[in-house]
Amino acid sequence: MKKLKKVNDPIYGFITIKSELLFSIFNHPYFQRLRRIRQLGLSELVYPGATHTRFHHALGATHLMGMALDHLKEKGVSINEIEYESAQIAILLHDIGHGPFSHALEYSLIKGITHENISLQFMKMLNKEFSGQLDTAIAMFKNSYKRKFFHQLISSQLDVDRLDYLNRDSFYTGVSEGNISVDRIISHLDVIEDEIVVEEKAIYSIENFLNARRLMYWQVYLHKTALSAERMLVHLMSRAKEVHSLDHISPALKYFLENNFTLEEFQENPEIVHQFSKLDDSDIWHAIKVWESNKDKVLKNLSQRILQRDLFKIKLGNEPLKKADINKLKGKIAQEFNLLNKESAFFLSHGEVTNSAYVEGGKSIKIITKKGHLMDIAQAADLPNIKAMSKIVKKYYLCLPKNVSL
Amino acid sequence: MKKLKKVNDPIYGFITIKSELLFSIFNHPYFQRLRRIRQLGLSELVYPGATHTRFHHALGATHLMGMALDHLKEKGVSINEIEYESAQIAILLHDIGHGPFSHALEYSLIKGITHENISLQFMKMLNKEFSGQLDTAIAMFKNSYKRKFFHQLISSQLDVDRLDYLNRDSFYTGVSEGNISVDRIISHLDVIEDEIVVEEKAIYSIENFLNARRLMYWQVYLHKTALSAERMLVHLMSRAKEVHSLDHISPALKYFLENNFTLEEFQENPEIVHQFSKLDDSDIWHAIKVWESNKDKVLKNLSQRILQRDLFKIKLGNEPLKKADINKLKGKIAQEFNLLNKESAFFLSHGEVTNSAYVEGGKSIKIITKKGHLMDIAQAADLPNIKAMSKIVKKYYLCLPKNVSL
Amino acid sequence: MKKLKKVNDPIYGFITIKSELLFSIFNHPYFQRLRRIRQLGLSELVYPGATHTRFHHALGATHLMGMALDHLKEKGVSINEIEYESAQIAILLHDIGHGPFSHALEYSLIKGITHENISLQFMKMLNKEFSGQLDTAIAMFKNSYKRKFFHQLISSQLDVDRLDYLNRDSFYTGVSEGNISVDRIISHLDVIEDEIVVEEKAIYSIENFLNARRLMYWQVYLHKTALSAERMLVHLMSRAKEVHSLDHISPALKYFLENNFTLEEFQENPEIVHQFSKLDDSDIWHAIKVWESNKDKVLKNLSQRILQRDLFKIKLGNEPLKKADINKLKGKIAQEFNLLNKESAFFLSHGEVTNSAYVEGGKSIKIITKKGHLMDIAQAADLPNIKAMSKIVKKYYLCLPKNVSL
Amino acid sequence: MKKLKKVNDPIYGFITIKSELLFSIFNHPYFQRLRRIRQLGLSELVYPGATHTRFHHALGATHLMGMALDHLKEKGVSINEIEYESAQIAILLHDIGHGPFSHALEYSLIKGITHENISLQFMKMLNKEFSGQLDTAIAMFKNSYKRKFFHQLISSQLDVDRLDYLNRDSFYTGVSEGNISVDRIISHLDVIEDEIVVEEKAIYSIENFLNARRLMYWQVYLHKTALSAERMLVHLMSRAKEVHSLDHISPALKYFLENNFTLEEFQENPEIVHQFSKLDDSDIWHAIKVWESNKDKVLKNLSQRILQRDLFKIKLGNEPLKKADINKLKGKIAQEFNLLNKESAFFLSHGEVTNSAYVEGGKSIKIITKKGHLMDIAQAADLPNIKAMSKIVKKYYLCLPKNVSL
Repeated sequence: MKKLKKVNDPIYGFITIKSELLFSIFNHPYFQRLRRIRQLGLSELVYPGATHTRFHHALGATHLMGMALDHLKEKGVSINEIEYESAQIAILLHDIGHGPFSHALEYSLIKGITHENISLQFMKMLNKEFSGQLDTAIAMFKNSYKRKFFHQLISSQLDVDRLDYLNRDSFYTGVSEGNISVDRIISHLDVIEDEIVVEEKAIYSIENFLNARRLMYWQVYLHKTALSAERMLVHLMSRAKEVHSLDHISPALKYFLENNFTLEEFQENPEIVHQFSKLDDSDIWHAIKVWESNKDKVLKNLSQRILQRDLFKIKLGNEPLKKADINKLKGKIAQEFNLLNKESAFFLSHGEVTNSAYVEGGKSIKIITKKGHLMDIAQAADLPNIKAMSKIVKKYYLCLPKNVSL
Repeated sequence: MKKLKKVNDPIYGFITIKSELLFSIFNHPYFQRLRRIRQLGLSELVYPGATHTRFHHALGATHLMGMALDHLKEKGVSINEIEYESAQIAILLHDIGHGPFSHALEYSLIKGITHENISLQFMKMLNKEFSGQLDTAIAMFKNSYKRKFFHQLISSQLDVDRLDYLNRDSFYTGVSEGNISVDRIISHLDVIEDEIVVEEKAIYSIENFLNARRLMYWQVYLHKTALSAERMLVHLMSRAKEVHSLDHISPALKYFLENNFTLEEFQENPEIVHQFSKLDDSDIWHAIKVWESNKDKVLKNLSQRILQRDLFKIKLGNEPLKKADINKLKGKIAQEFNLLNKESAFFLSHGEVTNSAYVEGGKSIKIITKKGHLMDIAQAADLPNIKAMSKIVKKYYLCLPKNVSL
Repeated sequence: MKKLKKVNDPIYGFITIKSELLFSIFNHPYFQRLRRIRQLGLSELVYPGATHTRFHHALGATHLMGMALDHLKEKGVSINEIEYESAQIAILLHDIGHGPFSHALEYSLIKGITHENISLQFMKMLNKEFSGQLDTAIAMFKNSYKRKFFHQLISSQLDVDRLDYLNRDSFYTGVSEGNISVDRIISHLDVIEDEIVVEEKAIYSIENFLNARRLMYWQVYLHKTALSAERMLVHLMSRAKEVHSLDHISPALKYFLENNFTLEEFQENPEIVHQFSKLDDSDIWHAIKVWESNKDKVLKNLSQRILQRDLFKIKLGNEPLKKADINKLKGKIAQEFNLLNKESAFFLSHGEVTNSAYVEGGKSIKIITKKGHLMDIAQAADLPNIKAMSKIVKKYYLCLPKNVSL
Repeated sequence: MKKLKKVNDPIYGFITIKSELLFSIFNHPYFQRLRRIRQLGLSELVYPGATHTRFHHALGATHLMGMALDHLKEKGVSINEIEYESAQIAILLHDIGHGPFSHALEYSLIKGITHENISLQFMKMLNKEFSGQLDTAIAMFKNSYKRKFFHQLISSQLDVDRLDYLNRDSFYTGVSEGNISVDRIISHLDVIEDEIVVEEKAIYSIENFLNARRLMYWQVYLHKTALSAERMLVHLMSRAKEVHSLDHISPALKYFLENNFTLEEFQENPEIVHQFSKLDDSDIWHAIKVWESNKDKVLKNLSQRILQRDLFKIKLGNEPLKKADINKLKGKIAQEFNLLNKESAFFLSHGEVTNSAYVEGGKSIKIITKKGHLMDIAQAADLPNIKAMSKIVKKYYLCLPKNVSL
């Protein structure tokens, strides 16, 4: 294990890949493909700096996992080499199941299969390739490993995934409200009764972390313009499936446009996962550029709009739209764009978005007081802020062409 | 006006002093003395980076005032040259009335005279020296200028003073929770009906600003260790006044230890202000080092402790201490340190601290919605957070020697 | 001109688009396509943070142009509104002629036509569309505008292009040696006899700028791994042209693979430019993924290697390779990979790279001393450093498969 | 060793004090006094952000020592616990012998005794107090420890002292030209034959480090205004010694103004070191404020000027001043200020300053090439830059009142 691989990171300085196995997985085409998938999809239309990739985020989260484990070891938590390596592998691969424009395409290209499920399939295939060396990593990921705190570091309300993505998305978008004290949070973690806890001293850093997450939701993840673009992409893909416009499309994208795989098929047929591993942002952009001159009016119009950043207007409100109003709008759209009524559905999108910064209850963030008591962060903070944040905020959106209104 | 003065600032890059008059005031010994007064007093005992001065903060706030005014002019608000210069002068001088370790010494060295009052006296004296050129600046500072929004930029719940100090204190302490989007906030200000308002788009930046302020209170301004040190300094000064230990003390400090000036005297006697202008951190440190070998046990002990950073322990609680307990503690202290009972009061400090991030009501922060409605930020935000922050949080502290307890 | 468009930038905070015309050009699909072209091409294989786009750089340079012009106006240089807007347009569009992986594809996909030439064609087409409003911008770009200093700001050894790309590439790669004082440099510019000069005070910032550029060349622009990947891409494209593998390729890419346009054709036929405007990174990645299963061994092998980051090894030396050695290596490659001799040329790349941080002479960077003398920076600096940097450093590279050697 | 002490640092995030002994030394009044000594003395008159202290720098360098040792251990260099702790102690204390305004007062208040000598005395006294636990640290500091590379990390052309101060001074002044890649440099260090070497990969980071140091000399350490202020302070102290103005001066400062101690006395008499440990910036500022109304014209004038930042003008040239010109200037000064001729010497300062970024030869920075050869950085770099930097640049300064000239 002579050659430690070091990777420059504008955020953490240097990221070191600490084991041969981790390095081999890192080099595997399944993982390397994440270089071509932007972490924030179409948010780049709003924040031009947000071009960072899932590859970079996965690497960053792996670095934070190392920092957290080093810190816990210093605190006296015993962690053996297999556990250390496995926790890093699990976080490196936690998002490998994301496809391009993931959140958009989970509702159109692939239906009802979460990226976590696909991540697990990837891990299993890699585990075969690496002769079972990912057993512990997979157990940690699935939360079947005996020491539960590892899973909490991988996936919980205070995991290294969130720590990295808030930090990184804030850095690349330039939205400084998302800035959090990763150093401070990690250096105040501990493990009590096999559970990750935060020392009371860092309570304000946790508050700030939760608040940063809430603000990033409104300012970035649910930004109206990005939401509108995403909805248009969903409709574009659904339409493409419907009208079967597969000419000149990349083989991998064609494969998923032609088929509707179930979770079971994904789990049983490695070819599906392998084809999925061929997909990245370029397949989608390529297709959109092909469809720009498609004969189907809907496909053509939506493609042109996305390419030219001529997006639907979008409104957020506190009430859902009435059914009658939706029908009325569809009618107007059909008229305006000379479409069939059922086609006009592709020019109108409505639904709800929610923002819950923190969920109280069983899997909550635990604080350990100076006297050694454990309590939920929502109880420990000095103000009803965190309680307030626990309330799920729901808003209703409506996207449609600029020149159409009730 | 050929030579624009430029000053390097690690936070804003370059600060330009834009007028001759401003430059002359900047060069005046009254202002230059702020170079020797640390902005955060004894907080440096906790955050070693926090050595920045009131001089630097005043300069930074002046820079932000320029940015805000430039932005408002771009927006179409008419601001003439006199107003521009005066607003910058007013903010440059807004804190000139601070003495060394201001918050500590306002309760001991000088009693019952706020630094704002002293700032005003300084401005009046400078106004005389500069033949009335500060008239408008003084009016703005006192809020007697006809256009009220200038005063709001100088002193309100969203003034450039707060914008700079949060930013600067966060930068120098390294407490990143205090980080705010100054750029974003300033570029979304407007003036409606002679009042500063914030465009709805920046509502999350305002929330973050209020939250950052609240977190900075707990983590920095009311940090327990710094609070303990400050309380010890208050007692030290009171004791020095009481026992009249004036040998080898600097002339200016002696002047204020020997006298208890009233506000009226400050207002009428320029010599008092002039003497005050001689005081800076070095007078206090010098005195503490002299008192370190004083024959008065209290003075000596407190001085040694501060110099050696051997501070009293401090507890924060939700209930005030009972009188009986205080007396009991004093008794124990007297015994432990072989002091008279009344002397033991200098070894025990108790009181309350409050943290109100935002005060609703008349002088609240106003949001202007896209449709042009004005509303209080506490009403506009999506969560009861800001309402929550409006609640004043009060805590009770108790400081005393480490080896004494009930 | 009510709606100023503001764009978040992680580097400068906020970028404002200051005129309607500029905003319209910004929104044009020709410009928007730059969102899908990474500024540093394949450097992302080495620096995973380097995913920023030509779109973002063009915007950043436009911002710096605004800063520079604002500063010069403050200094008393008269600049009218047309000039201000035109200088910003010229810099916004200065790189619009770049295709995907520009430096690589200029030698394979398109031959002998510089991106500056193509940029000019784009500007002319936009000028038509905007009824001649780009006349001045084009004149500035071509250096035919009467006031020459505008062209210097757009293109010279100290232009806003370089200021932005060094800053931005350093930020996104995390290579802090490229960090420069943009603020400081811009705020010490002046115009003397229609020429951009730097005040003597900022001489060290200029030295640092030149040195940063030199270091960025070795560490980023000519990084061995990135260079190897780029060379492989060049060979891949040449091979694709040669074997005419056009199935499933995007229409625009096909168009350029099938034809070898001359500069004259580019100048006379708007359709070529229009087709060019359809190309972005996704066309190339799509093609590489298609070719991954091509029947042509060379195409297939190179495509697989790039996708899997299995790059050729590369050596840099001070001497060019001997012809005999090249032939010997080609023979070994042919044998190893079972290729025809002429095919083996695609598996071996050799050539030279040069790094000249500063070129003395006519278009040099001028310093104005405190006494008002103009001199070349190479004369003004205190050390032979800049003279040293003027020496062009040339190195010879050799790329080939890892298991092949002399 | 339960309680690890963590200190917030705006530059490195968190600094951990890793051993009980280190923590005890850190808490000792000898070390704590550095909180009241600014690292850059009067540079704050030019760069208002530069208020950081020797305390903070010592802490930062200790942190970097820890980073470097952790890295070397990872590389396989064996370092035991005593060595680790001792290296950190040695660097923590390396500058403890600095007095206030050190560079200025080494030539006036204390003559001919370097701060390194005084640091050593402090270490010896602490060693006594801590029962010989500093033996190894002292040996490392004096370079008598058997493993020489530890001393190189403490004091050489590439030691953690320089790494921290360049980084820190650049950060606090805002002079970004001083920015260096500490992370990158440290992570490419190795130990070969008991000598610190740098891997070839980091050669550009070393070049940048040397260049940054050179630029920081001209822009900060030898900044004309700061130099002028420093020279005035030297003259002020010399005059104070001469005229014996000791009234109201602090006891410690008085002690050194009354006596001229030799190095031997410092080494033999602990009381002298103890008195020295009482000195900090406040003694000097206090004295200047007292002298502001002294009856000695020279003392009074210089004190007033420093307090009001009314500094002498200063010129840097390539030739030393002629003796005749100096005399002529002194005559003019005597006349202008109505002084005796020998008094006028206090109003004129001349001498030389030198800037040698890198010294070739025995103690040079060694590079290890990929093939394992050791070479001097000046030979390894691609350009004569570093050779150029090895040339010592000397300049001659002249400071005197603004209204006096030849």
